[in-house]
Amino acid sequence: MSMSARPCIERALADALANIAAPGHPPRLAAAVRHAVFPGGARIRPQLCLAVSRACDIDDPELALGAAAAVELLHCASLVHDDLPCFDAALTRRGQPSVQCAFGERLAVLAGDALIVLAFESLARGAGHSPHRLPPLVATLAAGAGLPSGIAAGQGWECEPAVDLVRYHRAKTGALFIASAKIGAQAAGADASDWERLGARLGDAYQAADDIRDAAGTLQWLGKPVGRDKALDRPSLARERGLAAATRHFERLIDEAEQAVPECAGSASLRALVRAEANRLIPRELAEELVASTT
Amino acid sequence: MSMSARPCIERALADALANIAAPGHPPRLAAAVRHAVFPGGARIRPQLCLAVSRACDIDDPELALGAAAAVELLHCASLVHDDLPCFDAALTRRGQPSVQCAFGERLAVLAGDALIVLAFESLARGAGHSPHRLPPLVATLAAGAGLPSGIAAGQGWECEPAVDLVRYHRAKTGALFIASAKIGAQAAGADASDWERLGARLGDAYQAADDIRDAAGTLQWLGKPVGRDKALDRPSLARERGLAAATRHFERLIDEAEQAVPECAGSASLRALVRAEANRLIPRELAEELVASTT
Repeated sequence: MSMSARPCIERALADALANIAAPGHPPRLAAAVRHAVFPGGARIRPQLCLAVSRACDIDDPELALGAAAAVELLHCASLVHDDLPCFDAALTRRGQPSVQCAFGERLAVLAGDALIVLAFESLARGAGHSPHRLPPLVATLAAGAGLPSGIAAGQGWECEPAVDLVRYHRAKTGALFIASAKIGAQAAGADASDWERLGARLGDAYQAADDIRDAAGTLQWLGKPVGRDKALDRPSLARERGLAAATRHFERLIDEAEQAVPECAGSASLRALVRAEANRLIPRELAEELVASTT
Repeated sequence: MSMSARPCIERALADALANIAAPGHPPRLAAAVRHAVFPGGARIRPQLCLAVSRACDIDDPELALGAAAAVELLHCASLVHDDLPCFDAALTRRGQPSVQCAFGERLAVLAGDALIVLAFESLARGAGHSPHRLPPLVATLAAGAGLPSGIAAGQGWECEPAVDLVRYHRAKTGALFIASAKIGAQAAGADASDWERLGARLGDAYQAADDIRDAAGTLQWLGKPVGRDKALDRPSLARERGLAAATRHFERLIDEAEQAVPECAGSASLRALVRAEANRLIPRELAEELVASTT
């Protein structure tokens, strides 16, 4: 969550993709994979992973960086498959054409597949000095990505006749936040279970902030609060109980995330980072304005 | 390749899928994953993996079984995504409805994703007693599945304007055979490079047998040799140079595979197994008939 981690994360991601374009490879697929990863978004998940590693007194930076790249690669994979015509059919992503729009549906399917493989490859490549840490790390990464309650399960809820909304959000957004925090601890040789709650609350807060920004953005765009229910096509706390209640809920989740940081050498700085991330998601002045609003 | 390995492989696959349907999971996705794995085909790749492990004097059966399940799960993932409407649009697979036909396109995308994750999870779960073997095992599995020359790369060639046919077959079929042989060795703590050639030749032989059976089957179905070029929509040795030449080529590849078995405790029995597998792919009488044919 510290800005100084960004260059390390970008380098770790570039390292993870360094060998995808060896001679004799199919060039368009490699280009599609690169398009899915660069330029990135906020890189929140790898930043959380590295911040937890640091708080746990990181002793194997190579493993922590391989792990951080792994969670981001899984996130990118999920976005690429999310944007497929059979799901969201999104034409843009992060302000540029989506992979399926720029490279077509088939390369988008394959790029997502390749990114999942690259995630596990990146994790394993970082484990050269600490191989005994790899089995639980792979298990945690797989739990964040697959079945029964990782990202794939989250998207799987979209294919059920009846959706369990809490489980849907927990799996689709929360699972990889939880995995990111736990993996950061495991990469540093620390106990992962101490960090699960932090990941869960941050995942919930991220989901809440997403809802709030969606609703607030729409509100601003419409110039008035009416009609935004129609503009949004999915239920959210902001829509159901209003922006003030949703913002108070978000602030409560951030408090809980802060309290969830276990006592350790780096806990004070990690709490400060949770605050900074909260302010990035919903700036303090906006939060105050929203809490005071009656919409 | 020995029949006695089959029950172990089916059990290892069932173990790998044991936790996908935990309470609160999306049930249809778990069902789609199960549909993709059971009932299986010949399970050639995990049998190769286990046979090499045995030839290398296997000392960690749990790891060998986790690895064998992993290569089969990756194979199943590739079939599910291969059958998608944007690729082969196949309605049947192994004599039953394909995943995309039975569960729809979206669940087929997600089932493939979940199977890739499960493959790495299965490998790591088996590594509890030998964690130091896991980093190179993950690297080998990833090389068989991803970029620049694994299964995803093989399918990636289908999206290029100009296809390199040799690289296409090597990546799409050969890479996972090579990975299966190497992983079998690595799971037993042996040197993987000794086993690469066996995997490569078996992969080529499997591809050649596929072409031959396709052409011979079509020939039988049409009742005469004419018109089969139209019935097949992809180039193959059998189609280009006739069934006799293709069958001689297949037999040469099997000879080379046999010779590629390194000298070790179990090499004699592994060579016998290569012969048995050849006979399963193209029965001896059929091979003799085809070599004598003038088509």
